[in-house]
Amino acid sequence: MNPPRTDARRRHDPEVRGFASDNYAGVHPEVLAALAVANGGHQVSYGEDDYTEHLQHVIRGHFGPTAEAFPVFNGTGANVVALQAVTDRWGAVICAESAHINVDEGGAPERVGGLKLLTVPTPDGKLTPELIDRQAYGWDDEHRAMPQVVSLTQSTELGTLYTPEEIRAICAHAHARGMVVHVDGSRLANAAASLDVPMRTFTNAVGVDLLSLGGTKNGALFGEAVVVINRDAVRHMKHLRKLSMQLASKMRFISVQLEALLAKDLWLRNARHSNEMAQRLAEGVRAVHGVEILHPVQANAVFARLPHEVTERLQQRFRFYFWDESAGDVRWMCSFDTTADDVDAFVAAVKEEMAR
Amino acid sequence: MNPPRTDARRRHDPEVRGFASDNYAGVHPEVLAALAVANGGHQVSYGEDDYTEHLQHVIRGHFGPTAEAFPVFNGTGANVVALQAVTDRWGAVICAESAHINVDEGGAPERVGGLKLLTVPTPDGKLTPELIDRQAYGWDDEHRAMPQVVSLTQSTELGTLYTPEEIRAICAHAHARGMVVHVDGSRLANAAASLDVPMRTFTNAVGVDLLSLGGTKNGALFGEAVVVINRDAVRHMKHLRKLSMQLASKMRFISVQLEALLAKDLWLRNARHSNEMAQRLAEGVRAVHGVEILHPVQANAVFARLPHEVTERLQQRFRFYFWDESAGDVRWMCSFDTTADDVDAFVAAVKEEMAR
Amino acid sequence: MNPPRTDARRRHDPEVRGFASDNYAGVHPEVLAALAVANGGHQVSYGEDDYTEHLQHVIRGHFGPTAEAFPVFNGTGANVVALQAVTDRWGAVICAESAHINVDEGGAPERVGGLKLLTVPTPDGKLTPELIDRQAYGWDDEHRAMPQVVSLTQSTELGTLYTPEEIRAICAHAHARGMVVHVDGSRLANAAASLDVPMRTFTNAVGVDLLSLGGTKNGALFGEAVVVINRDAVRHMKHLRKLSMQLASKMRFISVQLEALLAKDLWLRNARHSNEMAQRLAEGVRAVHGVEILHPVQANAVFARLPHEVTERLQQRFRFYFWDESAGDVRWMCSFDTTADDVDAFVAAVKEEMAR
Amino acid sequence: MNPPRTDARRRHDPEVRGFASDNYAGVHPEVLAALAVANGGHQVSYGEDDYTEHLQHVIRGHFGPTAEAFPVFNGTGANVVALQAVTDRWGAVICAESAHINVDEGGAPERVGGLKLLTVPTPDGKLTPELIDRQAYGWDDEHRAMPQVVSLTQSTELGTLYTPEEIRAICAHAHARGMVVHVDGSRLANAAASLDVPMRTFTNAVGVDLLSLGGTKNGALFGEAVVVINRDAVRHMKHLRKLSMQLASKMRFISVQLEALLAKDLWLRNARHSNEMAQRLAEGVRAVHGVEILHPVQANAVFARLPHEVTERLQQRFRFYFWDESAGDVRWMCSFDTTADDVDAFVAAVKEEMAR
Repeated sequence: MNPPRTDARRRHDPEVRGFASDNYAGVHPEVLAALAVANGGHQVSYGEDDYTEHLQHVIRGHFGPTAEAFPVFNGTGANVVALQAVTDRWGAVICAESAHINVDEGGAPERVGGLKLLTVPTPDGKLTPELIDRQAYGWDDEHRAMPQVVSLTQSTELGTLYTPEEIRAICAHAHARGMVVHVDGSRLANAAASLDVPMRTFTNAVGVDLLSLGGTKNGALFGEAVVVINRDAVRHMKHLRKLSMQLASKMRFISVQLEALLAKDLWLRNARHSNEMAQRLAEGVRAVHGVEILHPVQANAVFARLPHEVTERLQQRFRFYFWDESAGDVRWMCSFDTTADDVDAFVAAVKEEMAR
Repeated sequence: MNPPRTDARRRHDPEVRGFASDNYAGVHPEVLAALAVANGGHQVSYGEDDYTEHLQHVIRGHFGPTAEAFPVFNGTGANVVALQAVTDRWGAVICAESAHINVDEGGAPERVGGLKLLTVPTPDGKLTPELIDRQAYGWDDEHRAMPQVVSLTQSTELGTLYTPEEIRAICAHAHARGMVVHVDGSRLANAAASLDVPMRTFTNAVGVDLLSLGGTKNGALFGEAVVVINRDAVRHMKHLRKLSMQLASKMRFISVQLEALLAKDLWLRNARHSNEMAQRLAEGVRAVHGVEILHPVQANAVFARLPHEVTERLQQRFRFYFWDESAGDVRWMCSFDTTADDVDAFVAAVKEEMAR
Repeated sequence: MNPPRTDARRRHDPEVRGFASDNYAGVHPEVLAALAVANGGHQVSYGEDDYTEHLQHVIRGHFGPTAEAFPVFNGTGANVVALQAVTDRWGAVICAESAHINVDEGGAPERVGGLKLLTVPTPDGKLTPELIDRQAYGWDDEHRAMPQVVSLTQSTELGTLYTPEEIRAICAHAHARGMVVHVDGSRLANAAASLDVPMRTFTNAVGVDLLSLGGTKNGALFGEAVVVINRDAVRHMKHLRKLSMQLASKMRFISVQLEALLAKDLWLRNARHSNEMAQRLAEGVRAVHGVEILHPVQANAVFARLPHEVTERLQQRFRFYFWDESAGDVRWMCSFDTTADDVDAFVAAVKEEMAR
Repeated sequence: MNPPRTDARRRHDPEVRGFASDNYAGVHPEVLAALAVANGGHQVSYGEDDYTEHLQHVIRGHFGPTAEAFPVFNGTGANVVALQAVTDRWGAVICAESAHINVDEGGAPERVGGLKLLTVPTPDGKLTPELIDRQAYGWDDEHRAMPQVVSLTQSTELGTLYTPEEIRAICAHAHARGMVVHVDGSRLANAAASLDVPMRTFTNAVGVDLLSLGGTKNGALFGEAVVVINRDAVRHMKHLRKLSMQLASKMRFISVQLEALLAKDLWLRNARHSNEMAQRLAEGVRAVHGVEILHPVQANAVFARLPHEVTERLQQRFRFYFWDESAGDVRWMCSFDTTADDVDAFVAAVKEEMAR
């Protein structure tokens, strides 16, 4: 059979993969196939389609009967829509200093949402009740942005994990102080795979109010969802999504991707695989003298410290980034399409370059 | 051959189409096929991929050697990024009262960009130098938001068209007053098809500084681009796109869709077809006594006035919207997948319902 | 007695007055004297002082037992704080096209508050239920900024007045549609003086929810107040005032000025006087052939149309502004310190210049 | 002679003073007298008056021939106008974690200006080139808010001072990285008095680009100014001031206060006095066993640590605030009207309460 006609041409080598980011990967074939399923005919735009409606069933299966999904375009959009939904104009967000919303979203929370971020340094990217208390005060003080939400990331930007009990403690602590809890879950699937529990176990079951559920890093083309668990905590989500420029006209094509991932176990297969590849990679390089693994490897990221000149030589062979160039720290990410051979070749390269 | 595996299921009838909106349609098969072309392997994320690079060549072919494309998620995003790029914090946008940015974007220009819209009522959705002058004053007056850009829509929200000469006159007028000109081109292809000229003829060739180039309504899954023609008018577009939450991580999949549309003539085939369907529809209903066509039918929209009860009966058979319910005005949109049979069936239905 | 020592020197002629604006005037001596009353010793800053506390009694005397005053710096600040207080992030404000918030505040409502203004052209600066309905729709439509408040100006920017019954009808209309009513009352005193009723008669008594109460144009140095009548309509006013940069540290000096104006009848004396001067002016020029008075003169503003060259000659003798230069329209404002001699001299000048 | 008539009544004891804040004080009599000097007659509003014009001469005398003053209402307003003037929509501000803009302005920089603050912990409220470098990177990275300005506070929120050389080093460092330098000078006068140099010595003479010049804490009723030294660094200041709701209609009354302070030496007398009172206070309590002075006392603030129950008893006798209640830290501020007797009485009280 001939491939379908298109005027677009392949311009890259589909066999080349690196360790730079889980969004360097493309789309999982099962997700790509889902697009054709949803195509054809007319469907109501802006989210009133049959796929977005069905997605609600899928989401409730994962996050309980109160859960509602609001598909959006990207992770920054999910976070800023979610955080606006649970803050007033005077509200503030308590988060780790290393949180994506603080360091990697170009100031979108501040600029689009007028959100003040109250940050806390953390050793491993994880908040605790004690760390939260460093910013959780002054609700009656008009001179201070009012802490209204705690935002944590699962798995974290440093590849670490909260246990369900840790999140439960944070939720109890936040709720007792009148704050809600948001989870930035752009890699929520990796957390579930690593903890070997359903996603609900560390979200709705322990008190999380709403979350940003990632699709892109889990194998989608694009598309995330704000998942609201505590409906009393939010109002007019649809208006917020629209004014935040995150409303897709042909939403069926986001929703069907999320369905492809979440309806059965593709989300978990992808996450498990990328986590396993990270373990394989960590174990491989741990054996190399002179390379230090920096954080517990609990998801699909490996942070390491190695000599600067070794890194630069390695970067000529495989794509990856410095995390903290001055310290010599690097980040290696695995994704759903990373192969054991990719990892083994990379570990071999690390050995070689360390030995030069 | 079996279709590729996916856990997503078809939930709609792909044979049902209506006249509600050109974003009720799905994806053109040639665009869908392009996604697979770009898939596989790793590509640098956030726009440093080979497809986005190639897109620049394609865009320059359409809009001249200075043109640069910044792919974004959706039309509101394209407009708000583009307008922020050419305004200072104190800037204002002159536009038609009926402009999409004024009536259909949930206040995103004001909320995300802090933009003041200086609107002018127009009979047909089209600005003129004289109409612009109703708002083009007060540049030295700090009490007034400073007019810095004229934003026009081509084809307009009312299905009408500017001629190249009309846009040239507006550009000359705006430039003489120190303002730049932005075109909201979510249906730019329809304009080119109807005018039967290249897109450049009524953009870069007549002085347009930047534009929002639509992909979604032209047959894409999602994806538009801000096209900057006058590079001196803008700065740091990439930062603006990011902070406006319009930066796609796997951008190759927007760029390759735009390539599929624009590299050869798919954009034009799709636009011509939808325009022709609108002509067929307009001609068909014009013959029906009691139905009034409201504006010149110059693109893929037909505006009509008919008895309220007729509209309601028709809406039980085909999806479409009231435009101004109190006046009895309706809008019928044709899209790339509208068939002549669809139109003929609809015209027949109009006749039937008018005759009851 | 020697005047108190100061290193500041007089640099203007205190006998020169014009008709440009009621904020060209200085401070009423009784207001200036009030500053010394509040001076000396320490008072809690940021509004916890004895003068701000007492102001609440004064305000309740005018606006009823539920009224609460939040002193702010200026009129734009009062309006933007008030309107933010009654809108969500997705909210919009229905107002006259000629409203100060739309044409004279440099886009502050949009930029500071993210507010969308839904404007209506009016012949005389006054909204009506019918005019409001041109924008009052679409509450469930996320594509449209949600109308949540009607803002009217009393007396209007065109020197006209709403009767209490007109405001009552607007309030009933707005409330029935789930909207609240805000009054921009930078010249509320002039309205009360002209209507010859207490301010409450056309505010709390007829359903107004909150208002911006002007002090500056009524004879204060600076200082206005947001007066909240319907406390259920707002939340966390103090936080909003602070984040809008309208919180005065030494607030006692705003509050004591408002006390000086409002505790007894200075507000009314000042307003009556400026209104009377406007009447005298209007009557004087009405008798001059070739000068047209444009709107009913109901407060302290006179709008007139006269030959362009006459205006320019007059402007060399007295300060005042064109309102619409292309139409030849001018605005003459009277203030608390305008004298009958000032008016008579100006009328004589109009006669002279018209006769040349 | 009778005092001028006013309906406002004295409601406080002008003999009671405390150590809570320098904005608990009232107005210096010489400033109050200046208001009468500027009163009477009409002056062009919104800054085109003779007093604001003259203020430019005064400011140039202090800050050099390029300096231009933009009077505003309050310190938050000055800071947010100044910082917006030197940042693009994508810009960020590097500042100390303890900076007023970060902890005490209710999120106004983020909400009004969309500004991202990149904060650095400091032991004493003071930035250094090394500390700045912890945030000064990533200018080409669209994922990161772009550092465009360093904002330092002189004297700092902790009562410490930068030497001119320290500021010179910061300016050189910032300029070399394409950033400008802003000084939050709400207590600039205290710094000059303590350093015993003109204000220019540590501002324009060492490379500061613009500053927020405080009036209120120096003895004014209200009123600060953004002073622009490097005019190339800013554009359209008047528009920015207006849209930030900081434009006073009767600006002459801000400008004449600043003239009263700055034309001769009132600014310095007031600052010296409050600094001396802080020294007297610090020396007094330093002698009390069990009280720890926390930072170098270099301006008009004294930070101390003492037993919690002692603080609470003291607060029943004199007003002052905890700075960090959990640590037992308090802040004592002196102002222009603090007397030696006030200080001595307070020191005696500290002794008494410590001895109980």
